[in-house]
Amino acid sequence: MTKQLNIGMIGYGFMARAHSNAWTNVSHFFDTGYRPVLKAVAARNVSKVRHFAEAWGYESQESDWRHMVERADIDAIDICVPNDLHAEIAIAAAQAGKMVLSEKPLARTEAEGKPMVDAVEKAGVANMVWYNYRRVPAVMLIKQMVESGRLGTIFHYRAKFLQDWTISPDVPQGGQATWRLDVDAAGSGVTGDLLAHCLDTAIWINGGISSLTAMTETFIKERKDAATGENKPVGIDDAAAVLTRFANGSLGTFESTRYARGHKAGYTLEINGEKGSLAWDLHDLNRVQFFDHSVAGAQRGWTNILVTDGDHPYLGKWWVPGLIIGYEHSFTHQVADFLDGVRTSKPAAPTFREALETNRVCDAILASGKSGQWVNL
Amino acid sequence: MTKQLNIGMIGYGFMARAHSNAWTNVSHFFDTGYRPVLKAVAARNVSKVRHFAEAWGYESQESDWRHMVERADIDAIDICVPNDLHAEIAIAAAQAGKMVLSEKPLARTEAEGKPMVDAVEKAGVANMVWYNYRRVPAVMLIKQMVESGRLGTIFHYRAKFLQDWTISPDVPQGGQATWRLDVDAAGSGVTGDLLAHCLDTAIWINGGISSLTAMTETFIKERKDAATGENKPVGIDDAAAVLTRFANGSLGTFESTRYARGHKAGYTLEINGEKGSLAWDLHDLNRVQFFDHSVAGAQRGWTNILVTDGDHPYLGKWWVPGLIIGYEHSFTHQVADFLDGVRTSKPAAPTFREALETNRVCDAILASGKSGQWVNL
Amino acid sequence: MTKQLNIGMIGYGFMARAHSNAWTNVSHFFDTGYRPVLKAVAARNVSKVRHFAEAWGYESQESDWRHMVERADIDAIDICVPNDLHAEIAIAAAQAGKMVLSEKPLARTEAEGKPMVDAVEKAGVANMVWYNYRRVPAVMLIKQMVESGRLGTIFHYRAKFLQDWTISPDVPQGGQATWRLDVDAAGSGVTGDLLAHCLDTAIWINGGISSLTAMTETFIKERKDAATGENKPVGIDDAAAVLTRFANGSLGTFESTRYARGHKAGYTLEINGEKGSLAWDLHDLNRVQFFDHSVAGAQRGWTNILVTDGDHPYLGKWWVPGLIIGYEHSFTHQVADFLDGVRTSKPAAPTFREALETNRVCDAILASGKSGQWVNL
Amino acid sequence: MTKQLNIGMIGYGFMARAHSNAWTNVSHFFDTGYRPVLKAVAARNVSKVRHFAEAWGYESQESDWRHMVERADIDAIDICVPNDLHAEIAIAAAQAGKMVLSEKPLARTEAEGKPMVDAVEKAGVANMVWYNYRRVPAVMLIKQMVESGRLGTIFHYRAKFLQDWTISPDVPQGGQATWRLDVDAAGSGVTGDLLAHCLDTAIWINGGISSLTAMTETFIKERKDAATGENKPVGIDDAAAVLTRFANGSLGTFESTRYARGHKAGYTLEINGEKGSLAWDLHDLNRVQFFDHSVAGAQRGWTNILVTDGDHPYLGKWWVPGLIIGYEHSFTHQVADFLDGVRTSKPAAPTFREALETNRVCDAILASGKSGQWVNL
Repeated sequence: MTKQLNIGMIGYGFMARAHSNAWTNVSHFFDTGYRPVLKAVAARNVSKVRHFAEAWGYESQESDWRHMVERADIDAIDICVPNDLHAEIAIAAAQAGKMVLSEKPLARTEAEGKPMVDAVEKAGVANMVWYNYRRVPAVMLIKQMVESGRLGTIFHYRAKFLQDWTISPDVPQGGQATWRLDVDAAGSGVTGDLLAHCLDTAIWINGGISSLTAMTETFIKERKDAATGENKPVGIDDAAAVLTRFANGSLGTFESTRYARGHKAGYTLEINGEKGSLAWDLHDLNRVQFFDHSVAGAQRGWTNILVTDGDHPYLGKWWVPGLIIGYEHSFTHQVADFLDGVRTSKPAAPTFREALETNRVCDAILASGKSGQWVNL
Repeated sequence: MTKQLNIGMIGYGFMARAHSNAWTNVSHFFDTGYRPVLKAVAARNVSKVRHFAEAWGYESQESDWRHMVERADIDAIDICVPNDLHAEIAIAAAQAGKMVLSEKPLARTEAEGKPMVDAVEKAGVANMVWYNYRRVPAVMLIKQMVESGRLGTIFHYRAKFLQDWTISPDVPQGGQATWRLDVDAAGSGVTGDLLAHCLDTAIWINGGISSLTAMTETFIKERKDAATGENKPVGIDDAAAVLTRFANGSLGTFESTRYARGHKAGYTLEINGEKGSLAWDLHDLNRVQFFDHSVAGAQRGWTNILVTDGDHPYLGKWWVPGLIIGYEHSFTHQVADFLDGVRTSKPAAPTFREALETNRVCDAILASGKSGQWVNL
Repeated sequence: MTKQLNIGMIGYGFMARAHSNAWTNVSHFFDTGYRPVLKAVAARNVSKVRHFAEAWGYESQESDWRHMVERADIDAIDICVPNDLHAEIAIAAAQAGKMVLSEKPLARTEAEGKPMVDAVEKAGVANMVWYNYRRVPAVMLIKQMVESGRLGTIFHYRAKFLQDWTISPDVPQGGQATWRLDVDAAGSGVTGDLLAHCLDTAIWINGGISSLTAMTETFIKERKDAATGENKPVGIDDAAAVLTRFANGSLGTFESTRYARGHKAGYTLEINGEKGSLAWDLHDLNRVQFFDHSVAGAQRGWTNILVTDGDHPYLGKWWVPGLIIGYEHSFTHQVADFLDGVRTSKPAAPTFREALETNRVCDAILASGKSGQWVNL
Repeated sequence: MTKQLNIGMIGYGFMARAHSNAWTNVSHFFDTGYRPVLKAVAARNVSKVRHFAEAWGYESQESDWRHMVERADIDAIDICVPNDLHAEIAIAAAQAGKMVLSEKPLARTEAEGKPMVDAVEKAGVANMVWYNYRRVPAVMLIKQMVESGRLGTIFHYRAKFLQDWTISPDVPQGGQATWRLDVDAAGSGVTGDLLAHCLDTAIWINGGISSLTAMTETFIKERKDAATGENKPVGIDDAAAVLTRFANGSLGTFESTRYARGHKAGYTLEINGEKGSLAWDLHDLNRVQFFDHSVAGAQRGWTNILVTDGDHPYLGKWWVPGLIIGYEHSFTHQVADFLDGVRTSKPAAPTFREALETNRVCDAILASGKSGQWVNL
């Protein structure tokens, strides 16, 4: 028997669209035992939220998220607002006994995130952070192959997330579209926005980071405030590069920037082990590159695996071999896993607690970027 | 004011899923003035169609498509059944005054398709054939670039559609999953299934084909009937290769097979003109390769355009630069264009009449494959 | 004991440079038992041939190839002049008891080539045609893998050779740099120049062609004569596309043109068999693409083999893994194999007789291009 | 009038072959005014050096390099021996008035290299270090494009040199083939061997490095001595990763390892500027990737420039468009430039003095790898 699960969405921006799509589509492709229902959406801008509600078929809308958190007909709160609002909402939702799902990063800092973890654990509610790239089938395949020992001892982990959309000094900070450039709303720049993804995947696949040193830079020192039009200092990091040592003895290099011309959503990762290597690129998200050292010498090479077959993770639910899926499917998969977790009481990762670790590493990166010192974690 | 458009789906297989997804999602991303509603689905297998209806939220189901065609609450009939059933259903639906959308190819032969064209034109109902690859943003971008003259005079058009799923002699013919190998149901093999896509795109982009010669082959001469388990002769073409002359003076080469190991949905196309060339590969459907001869000599090359920006066709409706979309989005785009066509009374292509031309070329290919002669069209 | 082998080169153009490089370098890298010595070069233009002789260290020069063929101190004649001169020179050289190496194609037609075969066989002299692409290590690896059965039954063979250097109508015909556009000198256009390479490789790897049909085209009907400056009709084929059936039951498609913008030396080939596929591209000549169907399903894909390891064909003689070699190395390898053939009396392929088969197929292509009929070979 | 230049080679290993090939071939393709003659080769192993001399046509041989340095008939000394011998030989050669060319790195440390610089400058002899990758045509094209301002302000420089040949603990240290693992002979591991190449190119293209922090690692702590067979501690760095700040304000990341399975000679570099980006990969050494932001939005992308045209650096001397060259050609180009430098008295870069800077940065990397501190340069 399929149960209904009523979703209360907070926000109507880019991420709210991606999540709404996932809640809507999951039942069409996955049999999780739950059917999510878009019950309500909350945001202050009444006319914008109405337009959003109509497009997606939300049954109702609220202008204050606090009202929604209180509603008895809401089972799960999905937080799709800027980072500075995650903590307050999540804690209130947990206290109201709702399941809570938060966009990443969990919070602006580890300190801010810790009470969120406490709140959901105290309330005993299902909770998850939307580090969606774990659910890209190619990334999941990499995770499975590493876990099954195909690479042997790991020597290197390497990840980058490169973009180019803030190169112009005319891009403002703050506001609906550019809050990610405002340190108060975002907490940090590329570290929390982009490196956080790289770190979440890395820790998941390669285990904990034990120490690191970082270089951070703000190329453009002043930008207009989107609200006031006045110049004000830029508080975020425009670029960050990090050297890490993992607990398993391997070395890591991480880099993120919004000043790498030609890279749009350039998240790439690579892992080198004794027996082989694996690599992935978000721009070609359906492909895994695999170097298998066990193949006979003259026939060895990097195998380009098109991850679209029925025996690839999640793919049996979609189309037929050769037909690719896109970015938003990673969210649909995450919803499917979340619902499985609710059904089986084996929570889907990353929970708030697991995601807090990424905040901890982000904090260390920003600190090292200032101090120039190695930080032990 | 958004109007409701009630969809009657016939079939519950692979294509019915892709179409249902498109009807469902279009309103979330496109503002067409219509909101499709999944009103009913029809198929003979009652339990399977019930499962399908539940997954997708169809409001009702029918075990006989004839009943659905008669229902007053259905606005549009969407035909997702094997090719041998297209004509009868489409004609009945047109006569009942319904909009009609048919999976490709329009029919098994030009002769079978002609009355379908007559029926929809006589009834004056909106009609369209699901040659979905026209609506892949990268393919649409190619169309626009060719039309705008970026390539100049065209010399060559080249397309292939390669697969490898029927190499095993154990694959049967007929039945739910393998009707494409049964000549009675499918009409032909790779010609109508795969080359038809290549031809539809080619004619759309490069104009009419004036003559051709073809080679066809059936590698495996007998296969089991999926229903009876008895061996019976294979009537379809396993592979086809074609040389063509286009009306614009350019030369074409086309090839399709289900015996090209390593190719899953290997639809590739390339156009060479005086000023440049364009190429596309379905496995990387978000990319266009463009060689622009107007660039300074030492800096010329093939530019890999990642078709994910807001100013690329359809992409402004989806995510942000760098985030790719998948196969099924082409259907959503086709629905969006179909609805725009209904609203504006400028029918979205290809209509039944336009799609009939592809059947005509397919017939010529099969005839030439037998005769060994050039055929003038 | 290393023996000296005295080379008499005829011609000083592009191919004479590539061959001279091979004769010079072979002893530095390969231990064949012979040390080629650049003894003499012959051509009518005394000052140009002197410049060439100085650059390459030829010990002497001749203005008439007939003198060189008579010289007692010459062991081998290497023919690097336009196609219309191959026959006369080769026959004279054979009659003088010299080893004879001819640039490809052997002759303009099978009829012209037949007496060349007779002459070298009657004289019992070593002979070879410079179909150099067989000796690209990646192509040799493909040959070895196909022969060892890695692909199983072959279904498809596909090759193209695309260029774009004659698109401008201002390119003349005839003369030193553009004799390939003059049908009298070249015999044909892309068929003898480019397809001949594709056919030589195809027959070598996949066996004989039993029948074919072809389409040929001359896009630009008149060009200036490089000598007289007067317009005259173009007698060559600018483009050719061919459908073939191989004796082993597989299907072939071949295409060549000089009107494919963006392709420089675009020789690509692909073979599809039951167990796997192999592909190669001259622009990346150190790479083989291999799809191995025997790999576990979820890890299957196209493996990009970088053919630079010591256990790859010829590579043990060059650098270290990862360091690529270039176009001219294929000639050095061919010289090494030729000298091995001389030493062991197992002639290196393709001999004149073997290369005559390619002329036979080229003749059939040109005939079919005119008649529109299938030709049995 | 072409002058003869007599070369005295020291060493007969891998690099001696690459250099000998360059000295031999340069006159065949480049008109520099000089014709190098392989006059003598020196090494202690008499039989091996004889074999080498015969293969390459060296006119004479010496068992002690000191004798060769004294010979009046030698114009230039080319040092192709392990790093620990560079200084003594180079200084002696300079003092004897010879031109001196040294394999890279100049020396094991800046301190060791400084007297070499002094010696050649005091003697006033032509001198050069074989950082050959500057002369890969694609890399030279990048240099020219950056210099011409195509990228605008530079934000990021990124380079890696990845290999995988020392992963097995059975690889010994010391000896002919593996001296690069012996810290006494090599001075360092990947830093001096591989990163030195990356740094030389980076400084050449992007200007000086002002500060850096590094992480270094030795994965395998003990290896057999190739001479004695006894285990001894490994003194080299197996892997190094570096964060840098360039004087022009851009950020750099560098990484090198011999533990990246699947990478053979994996030197890659990328530069991101305001107006565009450029990238290169040694495995595809004839290609440059260029992202040109000035192109119209919908047609922007990474252009894959096949660097084989007559108007590309050095390429006018080789074959025709589309035909690639290999690794060793970079040395031939360097010889051509060196000889031009001698003729014009404008020394070809990098001179000993210029190459000393790379040693200085390598020293800083090794120091930071130990201290964990940023180092100002």
